Amino acid sequence: MSSDPVMINAFDPRRASELPKSEQILLDRRQRLLGPAYRLFYEHPLHIVRGEGVWLYDAEGAAYLDAYNNVPSVGHSHPRVVEAIARQASQLNTHTRYLHTGILDYSEMLLASFPGELSQVMYTCSGSEANDLAVRVARQFTGGTGFIVTRLAYHGVTDTIAAMSPSLGTQVTLGPHVRVVPAPRSASTPAKAAVNAEAAGTGDRQVGRDFAAGVEASLEQMRSLGIKLAGLIVDSIFSSDGVFADPPGFLQEAVAAVRRAGGVFIADEVQPGFGRTGDAMWGFQRHSVVPDIVTLGKPMGNGYPVAAMVSKPEVLAPFGRHCRYFNTFGGSPVAMAAARAVLEIIVEERLRERALETGQYLRRGLAALGGKFEVIGDVRGAGLFIGVELVTDRATGSPATRFVAALVNELRRRRVLISASGPGANVLKIRPPLAFGRAEADILLGELEASLAHLPA
Amino acid sequence: MSSDPVMINAFDPRRASELPKSEQILLDRRQRLLGPAYRLFYEHPLHIVRGEGVWLYDAEGAAYLDAYNNVPSVGHSHPRVVEAIARQASQLNTHTRYLHTGILDYSEMLLASFPGELSQVMYTCSGSEANDLAVRVARQFTGGTGFIVTRLAYHGVTDTIAAMSPSLGTQVTLGPHVRVVPAPRSASTPAKAAVNAEAAGTGDRQVGRDFAAGVEASLEQMRSLGIKLAGLIVDSIFSSDGVFADPPGFLQEAVAAVRRAGGVFIADEVQPGFGRTGDAMWGFQRHSVVPDIVTLGKPMGNGYPVAAMVSKPEVLAPFGRHCRYFNTFGGSPVAMAAARAVLEIIVEERLRERALETGQYLRRGLAALGGKFEVIGDVRGAGLFIGVELVTDRATGSPATRFVAALVNELRRRRVLISASGPGANVLKIRPPLAFGRAEADILLGELEASLAHLPA
Repeated sequence: MSSDPVMINAFDPRRASELPKSEQILLDRRQRLLGPAYRLFYEHPLHIVRGEGVWLYDAEGAAYLDAYNNVPSVGHSHPRVVEAIARQASQLNTHTRYLHTGILDYSEMLLASFPGELSQVMYTCSGSEANDLAVRVARQFTGGTGFIVTRLAYHGVTDTIAAMSPSLGTQVTLGPHVRVVPAPRSASTPAKAAVNAEAAGTGDRQVGRDFAAGVEASLEQMRSLGIKLAGLIVDSIFSSDGVFADPPGFLQEAVAAVRRAGGVFIADEVQPGFGRTGDAMWGFQRHSVVPDIVTLGKPMGNGYPVAAMVSKPEVLAPFGRHCRYFNTFGGSPVAMAAARAVLEIIVEERLRERALETGQYLRRGLAALGGKFEVIGDVRGAGLFIGVELVTDRATGSPATRFVAALVNELRRRRVLISASGPGANVLKIRPPLAFGRAEADILLGELEASLAHLPA
Repeated sequence: MSSDPVMINAFDPRRASELPKSEQILLDRRQRLLGPAYRLFYEHPLHIVRGEGVWLYDAEGAAYLDAYNNVPSVGHSHPRVVEAIARQASQLNTHTRYLHTGILDYSEMLLASFPGELSQVMYTCSGSEANDLAVRVARQFTGGTGFIVTRLAYHGVTDTIAAMSPSLGTQVTLGPHVRVVPAPRSASTPAKAAVNAEAAGTGDRQVGRDFAAGVEASLEQMRSLGIKLAGLIVDSIFSSDGVFADPPGFLQEAVAAVRRAGGVFIADEVQPGFGRTGDAMWGFQRHSVVPDIVTLGKPMGNGYPVAAMVSKPEVLAPFGRHCRYFNTFGGSPVAMAAARAVLEIIVEERLRERALETGQYLRRGLAALGGKFEVIGDVRGAGLFIGVELVTDRATGSPATRFVAALVNELRRRRVLISASGPGANVLKIRPPLAFGRAEADILLGELEASLAHLPA
């Protein structure tokens, strides 16, 4: 039994004595200096000292294929990002209360990747801060306080946003005006069906109807309790809910219902954004909806702390009339230089296109594994955000929770890094840097097949 | 009349047409791209392109003496910090779910600068996030929800922390469980008295008693409303309240009252911390109290986004039992490398000692100006955090609000950067990088004297 039932793939500190002495010393220092709230990954935590491209290296020099980390999306330690940071840091790093062209030039580049209505941007340090700001903006615009989130949503760690992130576990209390709805279910259960659906570009409209029905039920409950709606916020790839991308368009009915009720739609693009979903720069574009507010983060500076909130001007206006906003480090010259380098690399190295191609290749390979291994119940996702649902029984879809935990740790032993998500902790979460190519996909598929063959079902 | 009655020294966008065409273009782009919530400084905003040491350079190459910015505390673009960031960014920048010695080594260095009881640290990106986390930790430890803040406190911009920051103006609603108390008043009003008090190392105990009385009144009100106390949070230099540092020890009675009532004391060291107050590394040390929680930020990475919460282990324990914490960029290898370089520079370049010496020299010079100019009502502060209260009448202490606005802008014309604070917007806020020396103090004093002589009283 894990010491933390909520966090998937967490190291259990009670097993520290099984580790090499040198690592026990690091664990003791961590516990003593950083206290009890931090978690490490894996049964045997990783001590990483270097990263390059899609590879991480441990203290002994062993190389690990990184199929998990979405922050270093243009590749670990990308020299052009390092160079951009160092150059700007050696010139100037002030704040948004002085004029600086860096923030204006980057904002123009960034906003050009959005539908025209989404034409203003504000900067923060983290996705948490961006979502926190989005909540404040949505409240001012709507005059409402009610928010709808999905069952296992994760939107961040500030007090307000943790209270809108049920994936943090039941001991983090949800806000009194927060309502939880079921995430959109993948319509296709067997692995092959998912791949076929993708090939045909069609899908079951029932997914969108079901999701909208959940949202409508929450709206009705809010009305009966006298809670005025502020909005619906979703991670447009539903990462912690278990990765749901199909059929394209499934968000439309729910978004329409929220708008009819006077609320806004906030797309949390902290995880799916910046080209990861392959078919577009932003995850919401897969669903042909235009959000009122969009939040960005993680890969935006390839590890440099920078995040943002993009908004329709009419949605932002009431906040701007009532509140000023200053974020000491948000939108600083160095943050903008890092973000600009990342955006240029995504375009010039065609990383979105690469994510699309490699993602299709990888899902095809995973679906083929589904033909060999009964435990694979579904393969889904978009671009390089992939979920593989493992089940003990394809007919019932019963989650193969323990098997997935063993599999993630077996892959770590084989030096391939992934994790898991979903309510049953049974969905492999494959989310490599976008520089991942076919060669790396083949390594991942090979080690996954070997692990599946090796582990007792 | 300003478009924003709350923000001191804000540019009024309705006066854009008075500016050079090239700057109007930048302002237009800002307004269009960044929206209405951002503010610029000064009647004539600055367009800064380069910084070095205590100097900032505008687009035309003109040099400005920076006596305002506390983030670049070891000096703008310090080459050693730039080098530390570039070196670590080119090696690895992952997160706290892998083992890394950088976070452990820095944490040991950092915690060694605190009283022994404060022995655990958690990392965030911004002071806002650090205060937000402190609030969550304090609630878990006490089981209470009530917080006491000072009249013009500023603690950050997350939803929860903005609601504890009355300096953001009345349109940002305070939380229902937040109570506001008067800031500690400087006991000494005439400039010479302040300097004498400092020289003698004594002060009026009434300041501490008055502050404690305000806190006791809030505690009594919370009791009567059935609000259980969580804690008292103060910026230990009371920056936005108007800069109050004397007499040393004035926090003790209020902190004792809060603890008797079952609450914790949170010292917000985001502004005074890291040696700025000169006599110690942390502002609370001036008052010989040991907080339960301390928050850090702004100068911690000299502009790299890094912040932290330091806590007594027993205060952090309940949070650790109930909640896990992960901050994507918080405590990353690059953040730790930047923070370590800053801490080493502070020690090796003796910047705390320098802040003490230059601060005393500067306050002595300011007090001397008080002998020439009746408008100077008080000179106060600690180290390189200095407040100069300007009054229209020394007997009544009536605030010279308009004069201060004119003075700050006159100094900007003379290429010296400061700002103002306090309830009357009449306290000059002098808060330069710690690398500020006597030569720079003399420039500041000279330009201030010339401005005082030049402006109609």
